[in-house]
Amino acid sequence: MSYQAPIKDMLFVMNELAGLQQVSQLPGCEDATLDTVEAVLEENAKFCGEVVAPLNGPSDKEPSFWHDGEVTTSAGFKVAFQAFGESGWQGIQHPQEFGGQGLPKLVGTPCTEMLNAASISFALVALLTDGAIEALLTAGSDEQKALYLEPLITGKWTGTMNLTEPQAGSDLAAVRTRAVPQGDGTYKIFGTKIYITYGEHDMAENIIHLVLARTPDAPPGVKGISLFIVPKFLVNADGTPGARNDAHCVSIEHKLGIKASPTAVLQFGDNGGAIGTLVGEENRGLEYMFIMMNAARFGVGMQGIGLAERAYQQAAAFAKERIQSRDLAGSSGPVAIINHPDVRRMLMSMRSQTEAARALAYVGAGISDIAHYHADEATRKASLAVYEYLVPIIKGWSTEMSENVTRDGVQVHGGMGFIEETGAAQHYRDAKILTIYEGTTAIQANDLVGRKTVRDGGATAKSIIAQVRATEAALGEAQGADLAAIRKQLALGSTALEEVVDFVVANAKLDVKGVFAGSVLYLKLAGIVLGGWQMARAALVAQQKLDAGEGDAAFLRAKIATARFFADHILSGAGGLRSAIVEGSAGVLALEVEQF
Amino acid sequence: MSYQAPIKDMLFVMNELAGLQQVSQLPGCEDATLDTVEAVLEENAKFCGEVVAPLNGPSDKEPSFWHDGEVTTSAGFKVAFQAFGESGWQGIQHPQEFGGQGLPKLVGTPCTEMLNAASISFALVALLTDGAIEALLTAGSDEQKALYLEPLITGKWTGTMNLTEPQAGSDLAAVRTRAVPQGDGTYKIFGTKIYITYGEHDMAENIIHLVLARTPDAPPGVKGISLFIVPKFLVNADGTPGARNDAHCVSIEHKLGIKASPTAVLQFGDNGGAIGTLVGEENRGLEYMFIMMNAARFGVGMQGIGLAERAYQQAAAFAKERIQSRDLAGSSGPVAIINHPDVRRMLMSMRSQTEAARALAYVGAGISDIAHYHADEATRKASLAVYEYLVPIIKGWSTEMSENVTRDGVQVHGGMGFIEETGAAQHYRDAKILTIYEGTTAIQANDLVGRKTVRDGGATAKSIIAQVRATEAALGEAQGADLAAIRKQLALGSTALEEVVDFVVANAKLDVKGVFAGSVLYLKLAGIVLGGWQMARAALVAQQKLDAGEGDAAFLRAKIATARFFADHILSGAGGLRSAIVEGSAGVLALEVEQF
Repeated sequence: MSYQAPIKDMLFVMNELAGLQQVSQLPGCEDATLDTVEAVLEENAKFCGEVVAPLNGPSDKEPSFWHDGEVTTSAGFKVAFQAFGESGWQGIQHPQEFGGQGLPKLVGTPCTEMLNAASISFALVALLTDGAIEALLTAGSDEQKALYLEPLITGKWTGTMNLTEPQAGSDLAAVRTRAVPQGDGTYKIFGTKIYITYGEHDMAENIIHLVLARTPDAPPGVKGISLFIVPKFLVNADGTPGARNDAHCVSIEHKLGIKASPTAVLQFGDNGGAIGTLVGEENRGLEYMFIMMNAARFGVGMQGIGLAERAYQQAAAFAKERIQSRDLAGSSGPVAIINHPDVRRMLMSMRSQTEAARALAYVGAGISDIAHYHADEATRKASLAVYEYLVPIIKGWSTEMSENVTRDGVQVHGGMGFIEETGAAQHYRDAKILTIYEGTTAIQANDLVGRKTVRDGGATAKSIIAQVRATEAALGEAQGADLAAIRKQLALGSTALEEVVDFVVANAKLDVKGVFAGSVLYLKLAGIVLGGWQMARAALVAQQKLDAGEGDAAFLRAKIATARFFADHILSGAGGLRSAIVEGSAGVLALEVEQF
Repeated sequence: MSYQAPIKDMLFVMNELAGLQQVSQLPGCEDATLDTVEAVLEENAKFCGEVVAPLNGPSDKEPSFWHDGEVTTSAGFKVAFQAFGESGWQGIQHPQEFGGQGLPKLVGTPCTEMLNAASISFALVALLTDGAIEALLTAGSDEQKALYLEPLITGKWTGTMNLTEPQAGSDLAAVRTRAVPQGDGTYKIFGTKIYITYGEHDMAENIIHLVLARTPDAPPGVKGISLFIVPKFLVNADGTPGARNDAHCVSIEHKLGIKASPTAVLQFGDNGGAIGTLVGEENRGLEYMFIMMNAARFGVGMQGIGLAERAYQQAAAFAKERIQSRDLAGSSGPVAIINHPDVRRMLMSMRSQTEAARALAYVGAGISDIAHYHADEATRKASLAVYEYLVPIIKGWSTEMSENVTRDGVQVHGGMGFIEETGAAQHYRDAKILTIYEGTTAIQANDLVGRKTVRDGGATAKSIIAQVRATEAALGEAQGADLAAIRKQLALGSTALEEVVDFVVANAKLDVKGVFAGSVLYLKLAGIVLGGWQMARAALVAQQKLDAGEGDAAFLRAKIATARFFADHILSGAGGLRSAIVEGSAGVLALEVEQF
């Protein structure tokens, strides 16, 4: 099944909702003119649609495999990744001084979406490499930057994140991997890491592992973790790969989905010690790893959106082709199933949630650019707070959404959806990892409650809700049943969100378990209200353009209808979520452990 | 992962909610005494837990396979099915005169749940055989009954349902398979049938295919379909299997889940014609097939409930064993993840939805027994209307629920859930067929709207809602915050359901597409309100027993807490569904086909 990047919707969101013009005026972002951006998106769409997307189905059927410590990736992956690096796509957001294109996040984000829509398994190698680049840019020494960044940014090498250990899972306090200083500035690393995405593969000439480990006298817990660079091949002073390091892949996992992406168990130091160099300072590894993780979390949110778009396109195409049963309103013979109301409802649900999550993520990317590039420090700081509030929502909600959307994608296909050859089932299987890796939805939700809401007493959340109210007011001045219906649900939703923020702030200390019992529900509520807000803004812009006789009328009317659907069908769930959060902790916490 | 049948909950529901005592007093049900029922459930639990459940994981990894027209089923299936038949489990609900045990549906239903919790793939052969038995009991000639029923009921042979054809899907009007009369009372059958569950296998000595086909002069559409018995081996007059019939399996499907259950493509008549005999009268095949389908639809609902229970048990066991991160309320070291509030929330969500769906289904089974066995015709008729209203809800809602529950089951496991060896992912994959086969959720919802609601002007729905109101009134007289919270959500839910029934009845003719745009949402709303009603009834009974100092206090308090959770977290979604149904059709139907 082919993939056509929704460039028209992407550009609409970038221009009308996410402030591309303002971003392009930030110092350092001057290259992001509308013409350039359109050209970048079109080139990227071509690459993703023609080179990567055709690999997605076949690579699921013939996934990467392990043999004698090496991993052979699926047919076509190596060649495609070389083309990806050579075309500059790995470097789109990274600094020009290290070989990147230096474009703002708002421009990189749709490219990330397209690559993931084309193949999540393929895109993961780029996502992890982006994370390694971010960590080195922030905390690497000048020597490390000189040695590693250019080959990573140009796609000659790839990067990994090594956090999880068999006994530790998400609990980094339990990390046991050891780093023993050798007195020459290097360390020997000993330990086992699991769930290492692209921990071993044949697509690049070197793999740069970023590894969390403890030095001998490190304090216990998360305050005693340091970050090390442990390359697969040690790097000579001239930048060429040298001796094989003592870091070996002992197996890869047999997974529900993303089968083409090898998930490695890595053994460090079984033959004398893997040589690593410290990144930044000792015992600050977690802090640096969070840099990688925050970039990766936003990226995983984009995986959810890309996958949802792909599943939507496949379901819509099937529904237009599949002829079955008569039209309910009467027809001379069987009709395409897209004419059956419940199929239409599922397609609108898929489409509207994908568009809402896309809009929220792109708006987040634009705010991130302001936080990064704006000349005024206060503006940067305020934008950073908003962006950081949005990251767990973009990650958590977009991925939860993608589970629902890929489920509906199978359902639209009926019995054929359950047959693997159709391809819809792959999306459903692939989606299930997105709510788990880079921090489960619960971990995102804990971040949203603790660091992002309670810490500032709800101030950032309230500042965003105030903007939602402004959109409600603008809707109140507009005409028409659709905008009125959208306004009604947005008002109910923002009130629910405000009540929940108040509840969370007021009770986080008094009743910590009662508040965290609703943390995921708060994240979902924030997702639908803020996603619904972006859909409402889109509908307002569309109505204004229609009133002014500007633009593609059919496209703009579809925007309004999709926003209306989202309001009535998705945002209308806000009240139920509010009840579950504010009144529902008693039921969550009543039973004793032994009663389960 | 093992499976322990929840016999205590099953008996609570049967006794306190589904009226086992009243059922056991019906003419023909006298054997269903409490002692007998307990013994049957315990024996069945032992068989399912010890013999069938251990096959579930291994048979997913080494599924049934096709070779030269034959299918070899997974290791252990053949022996287990022989034991199943010999122990009398296939015959539990079927007449004693043909070798069955003749127990009421209320007793057969928990057995169905247990078998499906043990292995859906295995249980499917029994489910399809039950359907064939029901059709022959209703429409078969005395000769056919004498020839086929005893071996089917005792598990020597199995049955299949042959509806779907490649071009037809769910649209039976498009059936093309031909049946040519031979003048000797037999017909020759020619055609291709797809998605035939256990259409070929090695677990029994014969397979009795029930096949929809058209006679030469049949009218077009669904009114020209007849039902035929087409055995794999023709049956001699003495009941022994004879010559191989011209019905052959040309392939089996490669599926997302239920991999151990072979899904066959059957070719009838490629070598001269498959010999069949007519069931009942010509052109009434659809009517007979609906008998099979209605039994099978209820059975698929039980598959959802059994699978949800299995996934819940696995997740709860994992959450009690897996140690990770400190307790939010403070702890000296990492704790079992069941202590983390969001894990607890997911487990309660899984548990409460499973219990609610079980209660509703068992109540439905009890009503079916009254409809079948009661001495008074008016009572039978009234009960039949209620049962038929409930069937699409039990099928549709229980299976949609099982998708959510198995998803949470993976999520509780974190990264390990995505690894196939853990087993949680299998449940997630297996669940996805349940909302599709035996009629998708949309087809159930169309039935609920058309035949079950609009046809009697909402009278049956309203009679049920009146019973919900009586429970609300009883809750109003009870004490305590939990029952008050349950009452609040039940009142909101039943009001929403009543408004939706009124909307559906009022608009089904005026705005057919607008009503059907919300049909699945109506089904889900009915599911949570009627499931919530059963949970409320259970909580009332539990409170009364606690007040009287009767029963197991911990069990009864857990019932109340689980009902409270269901009310706050699941039933609280009723208002959002109401909005989406009553106000949401504009968004569903606004776009033109070419805009997708």
